[in-house]
Amino acid sequence: MRALFFDGQPHLQEVPRPAPGHGEVLVRVHLAGICRSDLEVLKGYHGFKGIMGHEFVGRVAGPEASPWLGRRVVGEITSGCGACDLCRRGLAGHCRQRRVLGLKDHDGAFAPYLTLPAANLHAVPPEVPGVFAVFTEPLAAALRVLETAPVSPAARVLVVGDGSLGLQISWVLALSGADVHLAGRHLEHLALARPYGVATFLSADLPAGDYDIVVEASGSPTGLELALARVRPRGTVVMKSTFVGRYPLDPAALVVPEVSLVGCRCGPFDAALRLLRDGRVDPRPLIQRTFPLSRGLEALAWAQRPGVLKVLIDCREED
Amino acid sequence: MRALFFDGQPHLQEVPRPAPGHGEVLVRVHLAGICRSDLEVLKGYHGFKGIMGHEFVGRVAGPEASPWLGRRVVGEITSGCGACDLCRRGLAGHCRQRRVLGLKDHDGAFAPYLTLPAANLHAVPPEVPGVFAVFTEPLAAALRVLETAPVSPAARVLVVGDGSLGLQISWVLALSGADVHLAGRHLEHLALARPYGVATFLSADLPAGDYDIVVEASGSPTGLELALARVRPRGTVVMKSTFVGRYPLDPAALVVPEVSLVGCRCGPFDAALRLLRDGRVDPRPLIQRTFPLSRGLEALAWAQRPGVLKVLIDCREED
Repeated sequence: MRALFFDGQPHLQEVPRPAPGHGEVLVRVHLAGICRSDLEVLKGYHGFKGIMGHEFVGRVAGPEASPWLGRRVVGEITSGCGACDLCRRGLAGHCRQRRVLGLKDHDGAFAPYLTLPAANLHAVPPEVPGVFAVFTEPLAAALRVLETAPVSPAARVLVVGDGSLGLQISWVLALSGADVHLAGRHLEHLALARPYGVATFLSADLPAGDYDIVVEASGSPTGLELALARVRPRGTVVMKSTFVGRYPLDPAALVVPEVSLVGCRCGPFDAALRLLRDGRVDPRPLIQRTFPLSRGLEALAWAQRPGVLKVLIDCREED
Repeated sequence: MRALFFDGQPHLQEVPRPAPGHGEVLVRVHLAGICRSDLEVLKGYHGFKGIMGHEFVGRVAGPEASPWLGRRVVGEITSGCGACDLCRRGLAGHCRQRRVLGLKDHDGAFAPYLTLPAANLHAVPPEVPGVFAVFTEPLAAALRVLETAPVSPAARVLVVGDGSLGLQISWVLALSGADVHLAGRHLEHLALARPYGVATFLSADLPAGDYDIVVEASGSPTGLELALARVRPRGTVVMKSTFVGRYPLDPAALVVPEVSLVGCRCGPFDAALRLLRDGRVDPRPLIQRTFPLSRGLEALAWAQRPGVLKVLIDCREED
C-alpha cells in the first residue's frame, strides 16, 4: 500500500500492509484529519519516523475472528505497556513506553490501513457520517478541558486561539451554559463560534475584565501571556497547546494570586461521539479542503498555510 | 515609639504610636518573626515603605470599647477594601486595593504597637506560649498546601526546600499520614523533619521515583526544576515560594503529562492555632536567635545569613 511516510521528509511511499499483533485489529482507513501535531512532526519536533496521522475513521478489516470485524470505528491513539507502575495506577495514557498512533513508535492513519489495539476502539453510531466521526479525537481533546477544569454555568471562561482546536473548545464550553468568550486573530474563524452562543473578539479588542477559567489554545507564548494576565485570583489557566521554546514564567504570577496552570491532553471519545451523534456539535464548517491520499503532500502543504483550519485526507481511493 | 522602618534602607526610627481606624484595634506586639518576604522587602522587591514585619503575637491594647481589649491575639495580614468585585466574590485576600501588614500599605509588626482590623484577629488559647503563637502565620501558610492539593494517606509527597517554611510544610503534610519526603541542602535542617516521620534527603541524593504531589518551597529556579522533573503524570506541583526572575517553562512539561502547577499563599489561622495548642507541631527548634527590637538591624542581618531558619524579635522591651 502507499502511505504518507515521514523520515525527515514527508513522502508517499510503498509500504507493506501492516499485520495486527496480539490484541490488535486491522483498520481500513476512510478519512483522516491533519492536526497541528502532524505539522510539528514535519518540523522534527517529536523525533517520529513512520506513517503519519492520528485522527481517523475507518472500518475493521481483520483479523477474521475479531468481534469488531466490519464495524465502523474511531480509535484512541495511545497504548500503554500494561505492566509498568503508571499503567498499573490507571495512567496508561502516560506510560513511559507508550506508543501513539502516528506520533510515537506506531505507524499512523495517513494510509489505506492501520493497526490499533482493539481496546482503543470505539464504534461509530450509524447516524454519524464519516466527516463528523473523523473529528472524534480532536473533539474529545476539547472535552478534556471540561474534565480538567469543571465549568459551572455561572463561570466566565475565555478561550485564547481561534484555530480548529480553540473553536471546538469554545463550542463544548458553551454547551455547559457558561459565559464563554473566544479571542483570536481571524474574523472568519471567530464567526464559526457564534452559532454556539460564544462571544468572540479579536485578541487586541478583548474587553477589560478577568475570567474564572482561561484556556490557552493558541500554541503561542503571547497566548499564554494573555491567559495569565486575564485569569482571576484563584482561577485556572488550562494549557491545551504546546509550543516550541520556553515561556519565561514569573513565579509570583501564580503564587500571589493563587492561580492554577493545568496541562491537559487527550479526552473522552464516548462523550465526543455522543455530541456528534446528537448534532450538538457540527464540525463540518472547520473542513477547508479534502485531498485524496495520493495528494497527501499537497494536503500537508495546505494545512501549513496560515489561518487554515481542518484539512482532511481521503484514504479510500485505492479500494 | 521606636520601630524598624524601611524606606530604601532599614533603620530604627522614632514614629508616632499608630491610632486604630474604624473597625481596627491597637495591638501591643510581644514577639515578631522575620520571614523571607521581609528579606525581600530589604531588597526593594515589594516596593514597600514603612514599618516592616507581619508575623506576630501580641495583646489588644485599644480601643477601650473593643471586645478584644486585653486578649492575646495573632492576626491575618491581608485586608481587602470590602467593596470591589473580588471582595464581593469572597476573594478579599486578593483585593487589588488590599493592604498587607508590613508588606503593602500597612505598617507592620517590628514595633511596640501595630493596628489591624478586628476582623483579622484570632484569639490565642492560653495554653499556647508566645514562642509557639508567633508561628501561626507561617504554619497557616504551610497548611494552605493541604487546601490547595488534598493529600490522601496513600499519596507520595515531596517537599523541596529545607528552610523554615519547607520544614513546616513537611510537618503538616506528614500529619496527614502520607509518605512525605523532604529534599534540602542542610543536614541539620533535615534532621528537624524526621521526628514527624518525614524521610529526608540531600537534594543530590534523592532516590529515583516520582511523586503525586511536589511542593516547591525552596524559592529557587532549581527547586522548581526538580519539582517538575519529579512529579508524576497528572500530579500536582504546589508553588509555595516565589523568587525573583523568570523560570523558563517548557509548556510540554505541563501539557503532555497533564501536570498542574498551582500557586498558594496564606492559610487557615484557626487550624494552625489548634495544631500548636494540641502540641502536634512544635516550632521551637526553628528558632535560632531572638533579638530585642533595639537590636532589630542585627536581627535582620542574622536572618540573611545562609542556612539560618527563624529569627525572632522581642518587641516588649519598652514596656
